[in-house]
Amino acid sequence: MIALSPDQHKIIDAAFKRFSKTGPENTTMAQIAKDLGYSRTFLYYYFPDKESIYKAALIQRSNRYFEAVQKEMKKKIPAYKILEGLVKIKIGCGKDFQSLGVYTNMTLFKILINDPELKYIFSSEIKMVTKIIQSGIKDGSIIKCNASKTAQNIIDGLHGFSAVGLRRLHVSPSANQHDVTELYKRQVDFGMFLLQGIKKG
Amino acid sequence: MIALSPDQHKIIDAAFKRFSKTGPENTTMAQIAKDLGYSRTFLYYYFPDKESIYKAALIQRSNRYFEAVQKEMKKKIPAYKILEGLVKIKIGCGKDFQSLGVYTNMTLFKILINDPELKYIFSSEIKMVTKIIQSGIKDGSIIKCNASKTAQNIIDGLHGFSAVGLRRLHVSPSANQHDVTELYKRQVDFGMFLLQGIKKG
Repeated sequence: MIALSPDQHKIIDAAFKRFSKTGPENTTMAQIAKDLGYSRTFLYYYFPDKESIYKAALIQRSNRYFEAVQKEMKKKIPAYKILEGLVKIKIGCGKDFQSLGVYTNMTLFKILINDPELKYIFSSEIKMVTKIIQSGIKDGSIIKCNASKTAQNIIDGLHGFSAVGLRRLHVSPSANQHDVTELYKRQVDFGMFLLQGIKKG
Repeated sequence: MIALSPDQHKIIDAAFKRFSKTGPENTTMAQIAKDLGYSRTFLYYYFPDKESIYKAALIQRSNRYFEAVQKEMKKKIPAYKILEGLVKIKIGCGKDFQSLGVYTNMTLFKILINDPELKYIFSSEIKMVTKIIQSGIKDGSIIKCNASKTAQNIIDGLHGFSAVGLRRLHVSPSANQHDVTELYKRQVDFGMFLLQGIKKG
């Protein structure tokens, strides 16, 4: 992917705040420009439309998630523990993706779901989880299984739970802290449940 | 719940066909009446509005699911096997609930999500799964665990996977048979993965 300039990061951060507050579908380029004290011309110089800011925000947050997991993968611990770490990191990032409407209305997300760069990110995640499972089979912390199929089941399971959990709790960007904390706890509990079947010993 | 008359069953079946074809949100009372060759007055005599037919259809299909599981529960097999049966039955019923938009757009489903009768159905499902898990702990086919929490995780996991799976495959009521079969296989595989962590031995 193309590296982002400091100005682009600033724009993404401002857009992100707006997306979280009013939802990506209700955010306008004019609002983002106003929040930054920029002219609209300046904004359009960097991003041709809202969709491109949205996509850049998705990529930026995905990269943060990948970087956190890669840090985890360097630890000298059994791969099963690394997988537990990944699940917790992923759930922790959930609030970011929720702000982007990934799990709920998906208005903008739907448009991008077949974007090649995002497809690459999705497949990279599966590859990363597959790699951890393969290490776990080797180091004896994970049972013998079809690693890539298992990775797909774990990721699908987590995404699905987010979608259902958010609906059930009616979590909106303005949800109260108690609901969000409650959901986080339920998600981690579910994530650990999901992994328990491949734990060895 | 109130028992349905043969006429009501006939109306629900006709409505169901319409819901599957054009989506519940695009179905009208006039269409349903026309399909049946009934006058609209006759239809309104049994159901005051489309929402009430929709709700009756949801309840009817839920009852079929419950009855199939209860039949399974009478079998003299380990409770873990009964739980596997339940998961397969639930996934098999998925097409019905998909036609009602339960996993996807949820237009009408959202209105009813807090309906007392439907809430009772949701909680009955959890209770039924909890009971099976408790039997499994007793008969030694399921590991010791918090049965009701585990039941919630299993049901949430299955619902979530349906939501995500249907989106990914872009399954619409007019989806081709290959996609539906593929999704069914993936769902059963996920369901078995979900259960594998509580299997004893």
